[in-house]
Amino acid sequence: MVNFLGKSSSRLPEAVYILNSGSVVGTKEGEGPLGVLFDKVSKDDMFGCKTWEDAECSLQKEALEMALAKCHMSTGEIRYLFAGDLLGQSMASSFGLASFEIPHFGLYGACSTCGEALALGAMTIAGGYADRVACVTSSHFASAEKEFRFPLNYGNQRPLSATWTVTGSGAFLLGNEKARMAYLEKEESVTDKSNRQARAKITGFTVGTMVDYGLRDSMNMGACMAPAAARTIAGHLQDFGVGPEHYDKIITGDLGLVGKEILLDLLWKQGIDISMNHTDCGIEIFDGKTQDTHSGGSGCGCCAVTLSAYILKQLEEKAWKRVLFVPTGALLSKTSFNEGKTVPGIAHGIVLESL
Amino acid sequence: MVNFLGKSSSRLPEAVYILNSGSVVGTKEGEGPLGVLFDKVSKDDMFGCKTWEDAECSLQKEALEMALAKCHMSTGEIRYLFAGDLLGQSMASSFGLASFEIPHFGLYGACSTCGEALALGAMTIAGGYADRVACVTSSHFASAEKEFRFPLNYGNQRPLSATWTVTGSGAFLLGNEKARMAYLEKEESVTDKSNRQARAKITGFTVGTMVDYGLRDSMNMGACMAPAAARTIAGHLQDFGVGPEHYDKIITGDLGLVGKEILLDLLWKQGIDISMNHTDCGIEIFDGKTQDTHSGGSGCGCCAVTLSAYILKQLEEKAWKRVLFVPTGALLSKTSFNEGKTVPGIAHGIVLESL
Repeated sequence: MVNFLGKSSSRLPEAVYILNSGSVVGTKEGEGPLGVLFDKVSKDDMFGCKTWEDAECSLQKEALEMALAKCHMSTGEIRYLFAGDLLGQSMASSFGLASFEIPHFGLYGACSTCGEALALGAMTIAGGYADRVACVTSSHFASAEKEFRFPLNYGNQRPLSATWTVTGSGAFLLGNEKARMAYLEKEESVTDKSNRQARAKITGFTVGTMVDYGLRDSMNMGACMAPAAARTIAGHLQDFGVGPEHYDKIITGDLGLVGKEILLDLLWKQGIDISMNHTDCGIEIFDGKTQDTHSGGSGCGCCAVTLSAYILKQLEEKAWKRVLFVPTGALLSKTSFNEGKTVPGIAHGIVLESL
Repeated sequence: MVNFLGKSSSRLPEAVYILNSGSVVGTKEGEGPLGVLFDKVSKDDMFGCKTWEDAECSLQKEALEMALAKCHMSTGEIRYLFAGDLLGQSMASSFGLASFEIPHFGLYGACSTCGEALALGAMTIAGGYADRVACVTSSHFASAEKEFRFPLNYGNQRPLSATWTVTGSGAFLLGNEKARMAYLEKEESVTDKSNRQARAKITGFTVGTMVDYGLRDSMNMGACMAPAAARTIAGHLQDFGVGPEHYDKIITGDLGLVGKEILLDLLWKQGIDISMNHTDCGIEIFDGKTQDTHSGGSGCGCCAVTLSAYILKQLEEKAWKRVLFVPTGALLSKTSFNEGKTVPGIAHGIVLESL
């Protein structure tokens, strides 16, 4: 059985469905262009907790609970959990999700973790290792600033190349055909008929390599990640033997305005023009002009909540039929930064199709 | 196609081979009972680098290079890399392995990461998503002390329940039957005939859940992880419908002497007696009486190098035919510890069989 393709891709032997999903965000995200689309916008960025880290734990917990509730599914029906976040030792996932008692694969791919989780989750289901899995990622502006940059109270100035870490978590329930049928049957017997079928399907993926162009600027992560996104997108198109026009949209994770330009340039030099159908979750989630977010949004939560609230909605409504979703990550830590190391990037590509 | 079993296990649809492996350790590990078995014992715990973190990066790099060299394999033949370590944002994996340019899945499962990597790697191969993958994990005593506890220069006292983080990295090359045959053919044409066949095979796994007994003592991680190990082992035996005697050995990752006792007690209360065939990598790797390591060894590198150097050797020599390998992890961070949070544990079980 050979389910792999080209250098680092797979076309899944059977489609994997995103049965449903949940998105929970903070106040600033709620005020942004996608604000009305999120499942829950909290008025309290502490989410009733005493620490920023606990707040991020709550985000993951609520997002997963929301997705489960929408599917009328109990935690016991989820075979495996693929989860991660930006904090040291993935603290938000460990403490946010432990109480669900779902067998757990902890992931770390910086802001690309959502893509990594969807790739592994889809592989697990299409390989027959599970009927249903959950993929959960998060970020929180304040816990990320504390983890990677400066105490908020410094009121530190941010260069225009900086991105704003999204406070949010997205949870996705993936299932095979059998799980989708079971879901539809449950839907028939309940009153809330808002989601009559799975939201979209995952049909393939391309796994990214770490790409290091030698940049050291943690305030310009778009530039650090763009080369990785370019390599993953170019590799994906080659592996699948298609051009950019094969996709209604190619959507990167959190390159922001600065990273987007670099990405388009890098691909253009390889003869690949994605300018007509590219966008970036970091650009979509905030209004740069009024929200003072400079280059755009970022974080593990950025692409996750944008996927749940916006991209899947477009696929459901068939406004788009096929999307290449490319979460991007910058692999830095405060230690690596303080020791003067570079910031390698990574990006994973997920093929999403409408039903 | 259903390849799953019970609550959180899989019996692989086809055997996955551990084609070969590499182990690199520091001086203290070299002086321990397994010292002569490691592929490389460095006389310099800095591995020629300027920082502890860079030293740990070198460990991962050297372990993977060693495994590749033994298999006469180029990096281009490895489809995916599953890797992780203990440092914030998995710094050792990012900076140690980026130059290989292998499509990368970053993992975080604390000291259980080796088990997580083997489970996902095996799933990937048996699911037909790759012919060959590599699994690499590491830890370094000094980078871990800096990450989680106190500066080494404090000369801080360690309670008897504390474990000593192993300086070491283990790399494993997994492959399917086709990859094994290609490996054997290469072996025929080269002079070094020391490894004529794969070292062992992986035939199944059990994925652990996070288990939190409310312990908060980062100097007694054996106690924090033992409940997770107990749940994974009990769950595994139930899922596979076998008793402990089915295995020649049940080998946990880094519970140490304190954790081992708790594990045996917890399982005993459930009517499961593993006292006759249990051991722990953390107990095997150091001589507690002469090496001042208190409860034993720990870290992502502990079970990885013990697996590569000791456990696989026993399986190769058919001293053991079937082993349940159970890497254990304590999901704490310095932030979670400083915020007074508990230390949840996790453990994954891997079924290893001799050829």
